Amino acid sequence: MISTDRLQKLQNEIASQNLDAALISNPPNIIYLTNYSGFSSEEREAFLLITPKQQYILTDGRYSQAVKKLIPNFELIEISGKSKFKDLLKILVAKLKIYKLGIEEEDLKVDEYRLVKKVIKNLQDFKFHQHRRVKTPEEIKLIEKACQIGDKAFELILTKIKKDISEKELMFHLENFIREQGFEPSFKTIVAFAENSAVPHHQTGDKKLKSGDFVLLDFGVKFKNYCSDMTRTRVFGKPSQKQKRIHEVVLDSQKKAITFLQNHLPGRPTPGVGVGVLAKDVDKAARDYILGQGFPSIPHSLGHGIGIEVHEHPYLSMNSKEILEEGMVFSIEPGIYLPELGGVRIEDLFVIEKGGVRQLTKSNKEFAQL
Amino acid sequence: MISTDRLQKLQNEIASQNLDAALISNPPNIIYLTNYSGFSSEEREAFLLITPKQQYILTDGRYSQAVKKLIPNFELIEISGKSKFKDLLKILVAKLKIYKLGIEEEDLKVDEYRLVKKVIKNLQDFKFHQHRRVKTPEEIKLIEKACQIGDKAFELILTKIKKDISEKELMFHLENFIREQGFEPSFKTIVAFAENSAVPHHQTGDKKLKSGDFVLLDFGVKFKNYCSDMTRTRVFGKPSQKQKRIHEVVLDSQKKAITFLQNHLPGRPTPGVGVGVLAKDVDKAARDYILGQGFPSIPHSLGHGIGIEVHEHPYLSMNSKEILEEGMVFSIEPGIYLPELGGVRIEDLFVIEKGGVRQLTKSNKEFAQL
Repeated sequence: MISTDRLQKLQNEIASQNLDAALISNPPNIIYLTNYSGFSSEEREAFLLITPKQQYILTDGRYSQAVKKLIPNFELIEISGKSKFKDLLKILVAKLKIYKLGIEEEDLKVDEYRLVKKVIKNLQDFKFHQHRRVKTPEEIKLIEKACQIGDKAFELILTKIKKDISEKELMFHLENFIREQGFEPSFKTIVAFAENSAVPHHQTGDKKLKSGDFVLLDFGVKFKNYCSDMTRTRVFGKPSQKQKRIHEVVLDSQKKAITFLQNHLPGRPTPGVGVGVLAKDVDKAARDYILGQGFPSIPHSLGHGIGIEVHEHPYLSMNSKEILEEGMVFSIEPGIYLPELGGVRIEDLFVIEKGGVRQLTKSNKEFAQL
Repeated sequence: MISTDRLQKLQNEIASQNLDAALISNPPNIIYLTNYSGFSSEEREAFLLITPKQQYILTDGRYSQAVKKLIPNFELIEISGKSKFKDLLKILVAKLKIYKLGIEEEDLKVDEYRLVKKVIKNLQDFKFHQHRRVKTPEEIKLIEKACQIGDKAFELILTKIKKDISEKELMFHLENFIREQGFEPSFKTIVAFAENSAVPHHQTGDKKLKSGDFVLLDFGVKFKNYCSDMTRTRVFGKPSQKQKRIHEVVLDSQKKAITFLQNHLPGRPTPGVGVGVLAKDVDKAARDYILGQGFPSIPHSLGHGIGIEVHEHPYLSMNSKEILEEGMVFSIEPGIYLPELGGVRIEDLFVIEKGGVRQLTKSNKEFAQL
């Protein structure tokens, strides 16, 4: 049902942009419009061709049966060794009288673009992600459910942390807990001990846990195509004053960002913006606080939207031009990273609602030793 | 060591194509050149800029520490909110006097292309995959090892198959076995029961196993960045004559393809080709056999190269123009799919060596009931 509404909304926009059709290639956008998540996210296995009144799915024989059964509102056009994508597109373009076609420039590859351009000259960039930035109540519920499973996984993992366990073993326990219940991690879990925690996207490895080490866990759950994402950092054994201090500053910087956001919410217009909060200003609130406490600037953006993808619009970064609106779900995840010592990151998901900002991830984030 | 040789070879080619540099964006190509697999395969997190004499890696602060430590032969150029990719590229292009730049048209997105084009006008398509089609003995060993782990996983999974188990549970057991040993699946495991096996890329679901069902398992292992891939189809309980017959035809069609390949190997020139076998002729050998037995044509290509990616060049398909050469590793995976009944696919990996064709996956593929 949901996907039908989405399709209708998209078709209205195609018409309003004076396009005859849009060619949707981005795999998460295809999931969004069809509820079908069987196509690869790394290889091109399907295209949607959508006009204001009709919708087609072009894919190959590996998926024909699934498409007929699970995406019945799209007409299947089967790509094969004898019927190549380009030839099929040519037939559709002629049949549907498409003179102006929207394409996703942030997804389509250059060689695919050249091929489409041979079929139809008049191409125009079509920015799909606008549709996915604001979530419906149903989508928010799915993300919330993913967060709840993540919170349970974190509770379990705290019981598994012990001296000499390796990062990979801990990752295995965590991901196993998620999979046992029939879900999957929304991305490859990051477990980082000691100085490895100074690498924000550390590759979980064979390092063994020692007393006094930072333990950074960054992980998420995928529930019915929707993702969660959370980071917690603890100290195993007796923490140093410096470790406590870093954790305190990171947590406070997250609070600064949340307070800033709450004080500038839609309905309480920001001067010069009109409605809503500029995403970059939330980034700045946390970033400036960390700098003011004498620590290096966050080497990544403060946060990112989340939904079908772990990282999607809006982006809370220094250069973002996006405005945070009601219905958006995103992370706020400041961090301090000191190469010789290690790093602390605290990440939670938030949704903007009429009443204010609500935190979706619930695990305890106060300083704690393990 | 390996990655240094690869880099040198690439630099020679950049020079021989009269390019001043190449911008490598494809994540598997970045793994190939750096041995570092920490970047996302779905999001753009790094670029390599390579001239005949120098090499740079452009990435953001999340990866700086890892890059310095693990990719010391590349100079790190850090992208940040203040130093955007475009500005950094502009500086490098000026400093290194780059007038003609190779780009990967089969990887670069249209919007990225427009951005690069603003920095440097003279762009030329650079086909990297040529470098990865033929494997070194070291790479073949890694794929072989991945296949061995897969064979063990299959042995284990045979003991787990029982009445009323669900596809997802079986997938869990299989992937769990792989992960317990510190490896990971090379792609999302396909477990398909009964008529679900008629969907070549079925999404593993909640269907429970009944007597007389086909059980199709398609899975792989990633070992030190190299992938395996294998498919077996069995019948649970008493098989029908039709099920036996389909399995027999699929297995025979695989044998036809292997025999054709062996008879036309490099050194035994194919008329009109000179050296090597045309990939499409191997596809044809299996495809025609299945058609000749009165079954529908294979709704996918016969096989694909494998290495860092599960699917890579060469492709054994009807439209392929590729020639199979010594050192190539690829799947041969014919299938017959009948919507009302189910499907059978048998897939193995092969390497072309001086002595002939060697099969790397070893699990029993004769007809067997469970």
